[in-house]
Amino acid sequence: MVQAPNKILTLEEFLALSETKPYCEYIDGQIIQKPMPQGKHSTIQGELCPTINSVIKVQKIGWAFPELRCTFSGRSIVPDVAVFSWARLPVDENGDIANTFAAAPDWIIEILSPEQSHTKVTKKILHALNHGTQMGWLIDPDERFIAAYPAGRQPLPFEEIDGVLPVPEFCQGLQLTVGDIFGWLKVTP
Amino acid sequence: MVQAPNKILTLEEFLALSETKPYCEYIDGQIIQKPMPQGKHSTIQGELCPTINSVIKVQKIGWAFPELRCTFSGRSIVPDVAVFSWARLPVDENGDIANTFAAAPDWIIEILSPEQSHTKVTKKILHALNHGTQMGWLIDPDERFIAAYPAGRQPLPFEEIDGVLPVPEFCQGLQLTVGDIFGWLKVTP
Repeated sequence: MVQAPNKILTLEEFLALSETKPYCEYIDGQIIQKPMPQGKHSTIQGELCPTINSVIKVQKIGWAFPELRCTFSGRSIVPDVAVFSWARLPVDENGDIANTFAAAPDWIIEILSPEQSHTKVTKKILHALNHGTQMGWLIDPDERFIAAYPAGRQPLPFEEIDGVLPVPEFCQGLQLTVGDIFGWLKVTP
Repeated sequence: MVQAPNKILTLEEFLALSETKPYCEYIDGQIIQKPMPQGKHSTIQGELCPTINSVIKVQKIGWAFPELRCTFSGRSIVPDVAVFSWARLPVDENGDIANTFAAAPDWIIEILSPEQSHTKVTKKILHALNHGTQMGWLIDPDERFIAAYPAGRQPLPFEEIDGVLPVPEFCQGLQLTVGDIFGWLKVTP
C-alpha cells in the first residue's frame, strides 16, 4: 500500500498524479496500489477481454476493457476487467472512445492475486454494485472458484467446471463456464 | 488442510472419527482443519455468544453456540458462532439440548483468521444460505470490516463504527454496531 506521507489527498489531487504500474486506486481517501500481476492473473485477464468482446463488441452491445480507470462516487478504481454497455460508452467530440470514464462499469471482474486482500476486492465489488454496476465476478485462480455478484441478489458460488456463469442482461449470447476460464491456465504440451 | 491419505472418506466415516482441535470440517469430500484461533478471533468469538444470548436466549427466541458442529446437506461444518431460533433447537428425550445438530443454523458468523482462506469461508456462508440459513456475517478483524449476507440479497458492507448490523428477523431487539464488535479488541489500560 502506498500512502501519502503527510496528508490525505483529495480525489482531484490523486487524479492529477502520474499513473504508476501497477495502477493505484483511490478508495475512501486511501491510495492503494494493485498487486503486481502474476502468471495466472495475467493469463485469465488476457483471455477474458477478447473472449467477451468477440461476442459483445462485434454486436455493438458492449465493450470489455482491461485495467481501465473508472472514477465514480468519490473513488477511482481500476478493475481487472471493466465492461460497459454500448449505450454508456463515453465518446469524445470526434465520436471516438473517450479517455476518461467517470462512471461505474456495468460489469466488473476482479481476479484475485495470491497476496491480495480478498476483503478489499469484495468491498470494491459491493461498492460498484451500490453505484449502478449490474454484475460482479470475483475469480480465485488458486481455489478454482468464482463468485458471481448480481446486483441486489445473493452471490452465487461456482466451482463445477460445467457451471455456466451469469452475465449482465445486455450481454445475452455470451456463455462462459468455470471450465472455460480455468481451462485457459492449462499449458498443453 | 488435513486430507485422508489414501481415500476420500464418506460423511459417515468422517463423523465417526475422533474430534480434533482445532475442529475439522467436511466439505465436498475434503477434510479441512480450522485455523488455530488467535487473539482477535478468540476475543470476538468469546464476546459474541454471551452478547447475543443476553438478548435472545433470555427471551427464549434463540441460542448462540460457539464452535458447534452442524451437519447438513452432505457437509459437516463448525461455524465460529452458530445461532438457532428457539423453535429449531434439537432436544433429546429429556427435553435437554441435543448433542447432534443435523441442520443449518439460522445465523452463521465466521471470524477470519490471518492465514485463513477468505474464499473458503465465503463458500461456507453461501452454502449455508442456500440451505436455509437466514443470515451470515463475515468479520475481518484485520481490515475492521464486516460483510452481512442476508439470504437471497446482495451482501452489505459495514465499516463505519456506528453502522448497525442486520440480524435475522427472529433476533429483533438485538442491536450490534461495528464499533461494538471491534471495540471488544481494545485493551483499556
